[in-house]
Amino acid sequence: MKVKTKKGIRDMLAVWMEDDAVKMIDQRYLPEKLKLFIAKDPDDIHKAIKNMVVRGAPAIGVTAAYGMAQASISWFDIGKAEKTIKSARPTAYDLFHAVDHMRVKIKEGVDPLEAAHDYALSVINKCMAIGEHGSRLIENGYRILTHCNAGALATVDYGTALSPIRVAHDDGKDIFVYVDETRPRLQGARLTAWELFNEDIPHTVIVDNAAGHYMQRGEIDIVIVGTDRIAANGDIANKIGTYEKAVVAKENNVPFYVAAPVTTFDPNTENGMAIPIEERPSEEVLNLNEKRVVSPGSTAKNPAFDVTPAKYITGYITEKGVYSTDDVVIMFD
Amino acid sequence: MKVKTKKGIRDMLAVWMEDDAVKMIDQRYLPEKLKLFIAKDPDDIHKAIKNMVVRGAPAIGVTAAYGMAQASISWFDIGKAEKTIKSARPTAYDLFHAVDHMRVKIKEGVDPLEAAHDYALSVINKCMAIGEHGSRLIENGYRILTHCNAGALATVDYGTALSPIRVAHDDGKDIFVYVDETRPRLQGARLTAWELFNEDIPHTVIVDNAAGHYMQRGEIDIVIVGTDRIAANGDIANKIGTYEKAVVAKENNVPFYVAAPVTTFDPNTENGMAIPIEERPSEEVLNLNEKRVVSPGSTAKNPAFDVTPAKYITGYITEKGVYSTDDVVIMFD
Repeated sequence: MKVKTKKGIRDMLAVWMEDDAVKMIDQRYLPEKLKLFIAKDPDDIHKAIKNMVVRGAPAIGVTAAYGMAQASISWFDIGKAEKTIKSARPTAYDLFHAVDHMRVKIKEGVDPLEAAHDYALSVINKCMAIGEHGSRLIENGYRILTHCNAGALATVDYGTALSPIRVAHDDGKDIFVYVDETRPRLQGARLTAWELFNEDIPHTVIVDNAAGHYMQRGEIDIVIVGTDRIAANGDIANKIGTYEKAVVAKENNVPFYVAAPVTTFDPNTENGMAIPIEERPSEEVLNLNEKRVVSPGSTAKNPAFDVTPAKYITGYITEKGVYSTDDVVIMFD
Repeated sequence: MKVKTKKGIRDMLAVWMEDDAVKMIDQRYLPEKLKLFIAKDPDDIHKAIKNMVVRGAPAIGVTAAYGMAQASISWFDIGKAEKTIKSARPTAYDLFHAVDHMRVKIKEGVDPLEAAHDYALSVINKCMAIGEHGSRLIENGYRILTHCNAGALATVDYGTALSPIRVAHDDGKDIFVYVDETRPRLQGARLTAWELFNEDIPHTVIVDNAAGHYMQRGEIDIVIVGTDRIAANGDIANKIGTYEKAVVAKENNVPFYVAAPVTTFDPNTENGMAIPIEERPSEEVLNLNEKRVVSPGSTAKNPAFDVTPAKYITGYITEKGVYSTDDVVIMFD
């Protein structure tokens, strides 16, 4: 991704490995500060994922893959590393997929660093392909709604939901992006807006409450979101609020697309209701900018994801092409 | 309303008149501070409404009525006062209704202060009646969702949407309230949570994104919201996000009720799309707690209200009883 730093434009990845250390942009400080987080062992990897230094299913997967490579190279107990890394967060399927993939590769005697690099490269290439396929859905003049951040920061580079938007913009299409701010952690306002600004893609931020209003007024032509896990029946789990946007999109005949690499499909999860939904600390709702926003004495609940049933989804943009729900179900049959 | 102050519990109104001054709780400082705002002339009234010192359609109406009384008693130009007060905000019908009502009363020679007090008292009595009628819809064990603040703060006392909840609680029903935080100004997190806490009504705050999740999981039995204007066909305008909640409620067969005094019905507005929607300053989205939350270089849009078509509304809770959409349309026929 292109990043505007004080010294100019710089090409960066969200996560990479260098000298036995797993390095990543610390997304908790964006957009105010471009800081790095350096993970030296499986505990650091666990913390980075749990505390959302790095977030987004594909980027979590790559971080986990590098974490497994690091554990192997640095002679940490690999079984323990696996458990530590897998227990960081429950919803994103990529986390488990990446750890399992690395375990097999290490057992096969493949160089762990090479295997992790290959994994990261394959994620980047898949995101590029998602961009190519998805951009065909975006016509000149389209106004696109996206929720949360499914950009380069969430996927190492390019993004899933943001990749088709990048390609459409690069192709010279006149597009405009409505960015849901995405409470409670404001990944839309902080991260997606930051990415779009850095790439000069026209956009504006709206509160999550306003997305329906713009759909109702015919001001949104397509919705594209990412996902943390796709169940065998095509249901998806994604950032809390995705379900509301999908229901309102269908009600207003706005096409609703989910962009994700094929590794996000979890054939072992029958449907969306079987996907575990992480409940995050209530402090994320109670406080903002280290100041309390909720009335003292009141509590808060904070589910991090919700489930969007397949019937609300127009199609799945993958590295292999765009599939309908029926296609997806057949793939797992 | 009961308010827990440092000196104990105190009974308070959101707006009242005393010694030629219109006094109100300055809602911009809640829940941190219980401060008063004192309006001395029509310009102060305009500012109080525009800057949301006082908000909520019925409370805006009462503030306007007292503002007209003050203008009349204090020998301000009454025609100018009318224009100044009416131009404060565009969406709430009560504002125009209250000013027109006072103009007629003053012309008729009624004591302006008495007319304004009568108007305020009638709003309070209507809210009490809304509570009685609406509480019959709330069964023991119900979990209720509400959006924004349609409580005592929005209506001088009792509230519209919160009044049935207060009565159900007073009647000993075991109820639980999910409070949408209501971005961008967080009236749910700040004001509704504060009111419910002061009345010991069990509740929790959720981000606006999470309401759909709880409806989908069968954890919400009824939705009750207020409204700023009801069009002749039953469409309503209310705080941004109401439309999304209504669509998702219908999709999940959760009854969706709108609570409002009959004065909120505007027979001259044919349908919801004819209701003017206020666009408020983008700073309300860009900044929180005086700190920027949106990535620098990005803009924001900030529509304050949205329109919920009548087809999503189960019923209207008024001081005269609970009406269906058909009843409402007949009333205006």
